[in-house]
Amino acid sequence: MSTLSQDALGRLAAVIESRKPAAGGNPDASYVARLLHKGPDAFLKKIGEEATEVVMAAKDIDAGRGDAEHLKGKFVGEVADLWFHSLVALAHYGAGPQDVIAELLRREGTSGIEEKALRKAVAREGDGRG
Amino acid sequence: MSTLSQDALGRLAAVIESRKPAAGGNPDASYVARLLHKGPDAFLKKIGEEATEVVMAAKDIDAGRGDAEHLKGKFVGEVADLWFHSLVALAHYGAGPQDVIAELLRREGTSGIEEKALRKAVAREGDGRG
Amino acid sequence: MSTLSQDALGRLAAVIESRKPAAGGNPDASYVARLLHKGPDAFLKKIGEEATEVVMAAKDIDAGRGDAEHLKGKFVGEVADLWFHSLVALAHYGAGPQDVIAELLRREGTSGIEEKALRKAVAREGDGRG
Amino acid sequence: MSTLSQDALGRLAAVIESRKPAAGGNPDASYVARLLHKGPDAFLKKIGEEATEVVMAAKDIDAGRGDAEHLKGKFVGEVADLWFHSLVALAHYGAGPQDVIAELLRREGTSGIEEKALRKAVAREGDGRG
Repeated sequence: MSTLSQDALGRLAAVIESRKPAAGGNPDASYVARLLHKGPDAFLKKIGEEATEVVMAAKDIDAGRGDAEHLKGKFVGEVADLWFHSLVALAHYGAGPQDVIAELLRREGTSGIEEKALRKAVAREGDGRG
Repeated sequence: MSTLSQDALGRLAAVIESRKPAAGGNPDASYVARLLHKGPDAFLKKIGEEATEVVMAAKDIDAGRGDAEHLKGKFVGEVADLWFHSLVALAHYGAGPQDVIAELLRREGTSGIEEKALRKAVAREGDGRG
Repeated sequence: MSTLSQDALGRLAAVIESRKPAAGGNPDASYVARLLHKGPDAFLKKIGEEATEVVMAAKDIDAGRGDAEHLKGKFVGEVADLWFHSLVALAHYGAGPQDVIAELLRREGTSGIEEKALRKAVAREGDGRG
Repeated sequence: MSTLSQDALGRLAAVIESRKPAAGGNPDASYVARLLHKGPDAFLKKIGEEATEVVMAAKDIDAGRGDAEHLKGKFVGEVADLWFHSLVALAHYGAGPQDVIAELLRREGTSGIEEKALRKAVAREGDGRG
């Protein structure tokens, strides 16, 4: 991930780091500082919530009612919310987007993500789950 | 996001694109092709599932039982699963990580993400929700 | 479910029915009327949110920090929230707790819930998922 | 909840109790025994998963494609899955449906569930969240 530290997710992660209580983040002036100050349940709950909103926004695209670009924009916005709160959680636990990306690359490198997941999916379907 | 197209998420997104049915992705040889072939419910369900696993892995870190590095690695792995299935969904709906990142930057640029979220959080707490 | 119509869930369902817009439910005076007035996304989102809170409360019991009875009470309260919002969704879609319970009994009667789920679980584990 | 012990949820809870490891539940013969044997993460994960499936099934009804009765039946089936796995979790933590229902009644009795939730909702909307 050589370019990541200079890129968008890395920059966002740096902003989040600066909002940590230990870094002087002010809960009264920053949403992220507030989440980090409250502790894990506050941002973990948001991850569950935003995942549900991603699913709902996707189903709205499938339903095909309303302006397609608007619905797609809403969906992308919900994924952004989900990733954003993931970044807050990562920061709290001493990790960052570079760790997630390294893990994704590691799997891709060993082609593990495809093969392992495929074996599982085939096994499930052998049982008629489809 | 000038560097993204060459970076890891962009590369991963390109691999996912190549697994689409229209691109000749083979459901019998690729997990991603299989998910995309099955349609939205298959990968949307995974987003809800992986979000729950992120939360559980985070709570395991909080509980502090077991090796800290191992628990952190598991947590990062769950976030990777969550982001990976988000990328599959994005691809299906004709979007990609660059759109999510552009949205995150847009919010940061207008400082909207902090201010809007903070106003909401304060309003909620004014009602005693904490 | 012969006794259900007189029992607690049935009574709660009747209260929820009376909060529907068509029944004259007042969004300014009732939380349920407000949810039903806003439409599905409002209460579906709550189902995802409360499910996450159930998981977090359960993990808090596992962690074993704090008073056991208090933690258990919190967990039960989160399940109550989850079921409550399920009841609101059921009402909106013209169903009720009696339908859910009839379905659970039907599965039990055919012992389907155990056998079908077991076959799936075994198939998954045959693939090393554990 | 005077009638509950004889009713469906109570009976289901009794079956689940009998599948606990301590009660001699056999993980090779019973799905519930297997879940309980594996421990919390197995059934907590299912709660997150089934909540997502409830949301997806509800959105399918909203989309109005396909046979309405079939879609409603699927939705009810997903709520049944969600409640069923909630019952497994309750059993594991030494609680049962009667505790959930007592909590729901308690709130109704104090009309707390409506009033408290309404105050929160109004506060949130005062902030433009809608």
